[in-house]
Amino acid sequence: MPTRFHADTVLPCDPAFAVHRPGVVDVDDDGRLAWVGPAAEAPPSEAAVVRLRGLLMPGLVNTHCHSPMALLRGAGEDLPLLRWLQEVIWPREAGLTPEDVYWGMTLAAAELLRGGVTTSVEMYFHSEAIIDAVRDAGSRAVVTPTVMEAPGMEHMGPWSAQLEEHLALAAARQDPTGRIEVGIAAHGAYTLPLEALRAIGAAAAEHDLLAHIHVAESRGEAAELEAAEGKSVPAILADLGFLDAPRVLTAHAVWLADDDLERYATHDVAVAHCPQSNTKLASGIARVADMLERGITVSLATDGPASNNNLDLWEEIRLAPLLQRVATGDATAVPAATALSLPTAGGAAAIGRDDLGVLEAGRRADLVHVDTDDLAFTPVTADADVVAHLLWSAGREHVRDVWVGGRQVVADGVCTTVDVGRARAEVTQRARRLAAQA
Amino acid sequence: MPTRFHADTVLPCDPAFAVHRPGVVDVDDDGRLAWVGPAAEAPPSEAAVVRLRGLLMPGLVNTHCHSPMALLRGAGEDLPLLRWLQEVIWPREAGLTPEDVYWGMTLAAAELLRGGVTTSVEMYFHSEAIIDAVRDAGSRAVVTPTVMEAPGMEHMGPWSAQLEEHLALAAARQDPTGRIEVGIAAHGAYTLPLEALRAIGAAAAEHDLLAHIHVAESRGEAAELEAAEGKSVPAILADLGFLDAPRVLTAHAVWLADDDLERYATHDVAVAHCPQSNTKLASGIARVADMLERGITVSLATDGPASNNNLDLWEEIRLAPLLQRVATGDATAVPAATALSLPTAGGAAAIGRDDLGVLEAGRRADLVHVDTDDLAFTPVTADADVVAHLLWSAGREHVRDVWVGGRQVVADGVCTTVDVGRARAEVTQRARRLAAQA
Repeated sequence: MPTRFHADTVLPCDPAFAVHRPGVVDVDDDGRLAWVGPAAEAPPSEAAVVRLRGLLMPGLVNTHCHSPMALLRGAGEDLPLLRWLQEVIWPREAGLTPEDVYWGMTLAAAELLRGGVTTSVEMYFHSEAIIDAVRDAGSRAVVTPTVMEAPGMEHMGPWSAQLEEHLALAAARQDPTGRIEVGIAAHGAYTLPLEALRAIGAAAAEHDLLAHIHVAESRGEAAELEAAEGKSVPAILADLGFLDAPRVLTAHAVWLADDDLERYATHDVAVAHCPQSNTKLASGIARVADMLERGITVSLATDGPASNNNLDLWEEIRLAPLLQRVATGDATAVPAATALSLPTAGGAAAIGRDDLGVLEAGRRADLVHVDTDDLAFTPVTADADVVAHLLWSAGREHVRDVWVGGRQVVADGVCTTVDVGRARAEVTQRARRLAAQA
Repeated sequence: MPTRFHADTVLPCDPAFAVHRPGVVDVDDDGRLAWVGPAAEAPPSEAAVVRLRGLLMPGLVNTHCHSPMALLRGAGEDLPLLRWLQEVIWPREAGLTPEDVYWGMTLAAAELLRGGVTTSVEMYFHSEAIIDAVRDAGSRAVVTPTVMEAPGMEHMGPWSAQLEEHLALAAARQDPTGRIEVGIAAHGAYTLPLEALRAIGAAAAEHDLLAHIHVAESRGEAAELEAAEGKSVPAILADLGFLDAPRVLTAHAVWLADDDLERYATHDVAVAHCPQSNTKLASGIARVADMLERGITVSLATDGPASNNNLDLWEEIRLAPLLQRVATGDATAVPAATALSLPTAGGAAAIGRDDLGVLEAGRRADLVHVDTDDLAFTPVTADADVVAHLLWSAGREHVRDVWVGGRQVVADGVCTTVDVGRARAEVTQRARRLAAQA
């Protein structure tokens, strides 16, 4: 049934960053947006009207998650990275079953939706279980099964067999409604042979899959490879043809030199910026202001809940400008409209989806209703104040209702599509088993 | 009536950073703690028992606020600092009445309490109105009336008259129950004559007042003074005797050289670290890891809601370790127990109050009940997980109940001591008047 939403404020997150007060959003029978604009200009309609006190904006896009790691939230805090991986994370991951991943993803989906994230890009193992969980939870995801060869990961088999299996999954599980898309991930340039990177890039191009990869998260992580090849990881990826895939999404991208940024701009490579993960793990501060200046597509991501330790994208929306400001010394770097465009229009662009990220006729009705009837939104003396409050004063707890493709999945702050009590019990019991086995 | 709280987890934030699961906290008739420890060791009691599902911890201490600036929340975002002050903030502040400040502080008190902050240190104008608002809101505060001489602030009169007036207020309004304490603030070394700093320091020592001052917020803010004197601001303050006051609290302290840190350690000068304000305004990253290594007392603060733009101390609890980790390159810098000690034990120590900040017999019953029955606290496989989740996964929205001196001021997430609807209406109306006048 078509619906007309009438809200105090509509923030389409379009390029002009319009603020409609009050605004109207029309949703059609197919869960797409039919009209968006100021209430005074809305066309006649016979749709049922839903009055929303507060603000309506696009669902957020979290472009780099290992969401099932909700199973490992908080495990082994305050250890140096390598000890944390070797002593805590890898031994637990070795015991993961598809059912564990299903329940980790299910709990994560509830957390994502409750926090206004309607789309996540998932890079993890047991991708079929992730797809099933996303299907059942009603969220939207681009699932990118990971090809990886690393010490301790021999049980994953050779890269070529992994790739073959992932391509079969991609062929079988694309969702024609656009709710579940299957891409492909290369874990990283230093965890795969170069021929694997070439093959993954070529397969992504052939089947038009989102090609997802970790790049330059920490300084020197690929020092050996870069010394052997005499060039940076982005240059290696460019020369292998990986960057010629139509949609390339690189996570982190912290340590990029100027010529790497040029390469990103030339090849239209997108960045999944993970500010909290990068600071918590002492990786560094990505050059987001420089990227934006060069027209590079930048999106936001939480990384996995084992290293963040949640899936709260609002923290990242604030942290991105904070870090750019202190790193550049410019208190006007990444202004409010830019910051709020990163997880919306930027997220959709980063995954090459022109049907998401902006409230505009024809795109999908992924909607977030933010409750502005709160002291966090007080006072308002001008339209711009609402935007400033949304960015700097409010948070995930102000998300009241969420729709994915026109279907309501969060009502009054509660995720209605997931049995959260059961998911918490399953995750707790499975996390204890994994800890005991490790 | 004495009360026994029985909670799933009690986190006293004591030096050993004990975690009692389950734990007991006994509160006596005078609103002080009578006993704190593991439930299994609790002494016999006939007090009424309150069962709390979740975690009980000390009320947070926010050591550098200009809380009434809730009136100016969000005004003039994304301007360079000087234009923001000259075009937006100062013209509005020129129109402030004591009633404006009363309502700004009232709304801020509700925000502070709801977020688990039971004590704030206030540096602003119209201090009598601040005291009245704190009295009525049921929060706890150290109000430090500000002495300042700066261009555009001539209406405040000469520093000596300001100091005299503030000392009279301090003599008249000290609250024998410890809920409202009046200290004294020097705005900064570069906004006052040296003789004023000397006199303020001497008065603080004579009357045992907390001496509060901005130090080294931005690089070069006091360049002229430092060049003329041939030494740093902390050295100037030391030579003037200001640092000999028994309790000196310096806000920001971003740009301190090694010898300044030595001076801080020698004179037992405390720091109000404001990570979000310092990054948002591109001021810099304070050397917190170095300070802690030298035994300097570090506390946390939000700064004013015009530049933060809220009074959410949980953001600061996370941002402090994030910034230290990325600045030092050490992913284990400021571990969880240290981070959670900064706004509790650290806050109390920073203001020289041995009756706050730690759950320990004899101290005041300023208590925060955190709801752990949520996916943010899932899974728990070991006691340390609860602490990790509290720091990295939860947030202000998990604060359920709050007590100040044994009196409940927040119940089920709602501040019961403030008419928030009225406060919001008053702040909105007054903010519009100030904006129109400016």
